[in-house]
Amino acid sequence: MPRYRITVEYDGRDYAGWQRQENGPSIQAALEDAIFRLCAEHVTVTGAGRTDAGVHARGQVAHFDLQREFPANTVRDALNAHLRPAPIAVLDAATVGDDFHARFSATARNYEYRMLCRRAPPALDAGRVWHVGRALDAEAMQTGANLLLGQHDFTTFRAAECQAKSPVKTLDVFDVRPMASEIIFTAKARSFLHHQVRSMVGTLKLVGEGKYPPNHMARILAACDRTACGPVAPPEGLTLVRVDY
Amino acid sequence: MPRYRITVEYDGRDYAGWQRQENGPSIQAALEDAIFRLCAEHVTVTGAGRTDAGVHARGQVAHFDLQREFPANTVRDALNAHLRPAPIAVLDAATVGDDFHARFSATARNYEYRMLCRRAPPALDAGRVWHVGRALDAEAMQTGANLLLGQHDFTTFRAAECQAKSPVKTLDVFDVRPMASEIIFTAKARSFLHHQVRSMVGTLKLVGEGKYPPNHMARILAACDRTACGPVAPPEGLTLVRVDY
Repeated sequence: MPRYRITVEYDGRDYAGWQRQENGPSIQAALEDAIFRLCAEHVTVTGAGRTDAGVHARGQVAHFDLQREFPANTVRDALNAHLRPAPIAVLDAATVGDDFHARFSATARNYEYRMLCRRAPPALDAGRVWHVGRALDAEAMQTGANLLLGQHDFTTFRAAECQAKSPVKTLDVFDVRPMASEIIFTAKARSFLHHQVRSMVGTLKLVGEGKYPPNHMARILAACDRTACGPVAPPEGLTLVRVDY
Repeated sequence: MPRYRITVEYDGRDYAGWQRQENGPSIQAALEDAIFRLCAEHVTVTGAGRTDAGVHARGQVAHFDLQREFPANTVRDALNAHLRPAPIAVLDAATVGDDFHARFSATARNYEYRMLCRRAPPALDAGRVWHVGRALDAEAMQTGANLLLGQHDFTTFRAAECQAKSPVKTLDVFDVRPMASEIIFTAKARSFLHHQVRSMVGTLKLVGEGKYPPNHMARILAACDRTACGPVAPPEGLTLVRVDY
């Protein structure tokens, strides 16, 4: 029974998230339906990261098992044909051993968060950036972001509905980079709590606006208290860029 | 009678082009309608470049005259409010002297053309890139592009319906840069002929595929013959990035 690993790009705007659910279309269901159209098998597609409604991916990774064996490129091309015109594309497919698990074998998730810091709303990047109407202090945000690096109890930045066993995570990278009228956040960790990236970005925005000094981030983190978190940044700015194995 | 200069970003996907016309919505008409809603004046908005249907802009520049004087930031914010939810945004507005002309005062137009060179269709960038199903030789295309630099008769790369007085133009920059699975073309000239960038890119694609050697571009250019041109690249990959004055 061959196992396939796929790398998937999607525009999450019109989806209720990665995970199959009652209340709207999901990326997972779209892929499972496309697989059914390919080979009439009902399978479960397991993703590396369960992205929320409105969140995008350039490199989501998922796996599934089929009874039938196909050349990997056939799987990629057939799924793309069946997915059309949905904004979901299978970039790559490969057969892998059955010890590969998209979620549990992953050693790191890489996310990007885009903030558009200008008065005018986005025209070309609507649905892809968080529109923040003014310039923010990227340097102060980077100083604040640095205080979150390493292993910590991230309870402050954890959604109430988070299902992780432990709130302790290790944040390996958290870069804040100004680019034209945008600020791009890059975050890397073995795994993240639910809403962690958006919670950290939303809190750093308060630093960028000068409402908190950068070192206040250490106190907010140490509080281990959800009420210390700033407003959670909206989903449209977030993209799952790459999963490492 | 104050003159306003505006910088405009738009997603050209659902528009019949910059210019007001019978057969579909245009960026110009959307702006003129928004101005009418601001001040009940019927004006003509003059753009620096008449982008085609499907072509985008990050920095189109236009001007118009109003009877009433408004603070420039009011014009910007009010137009954005009236344009909503169209994918058109006024990034900047300024009052300028009546010797400023968006089209005739421009000293250079800067365009970018994005080619997506991979098997899978675009999901996140659908409508924003030319989907080319395979890798191309960017270095060969750069060698070919270099042969178009400078002052030439660009008749080969000129649409039949082009209204320019002369086919002689000076191409200042024509860069071909691979970036992840994309190839990005950057072109700069005082002005371009109708379809010139898309004609040059479409012809260079044949070089990138190995159908022509790079130095064949010199012969194609020297032919001054529209039939020597390759298939014109589709509009969705093209963006007017900046206009210089």
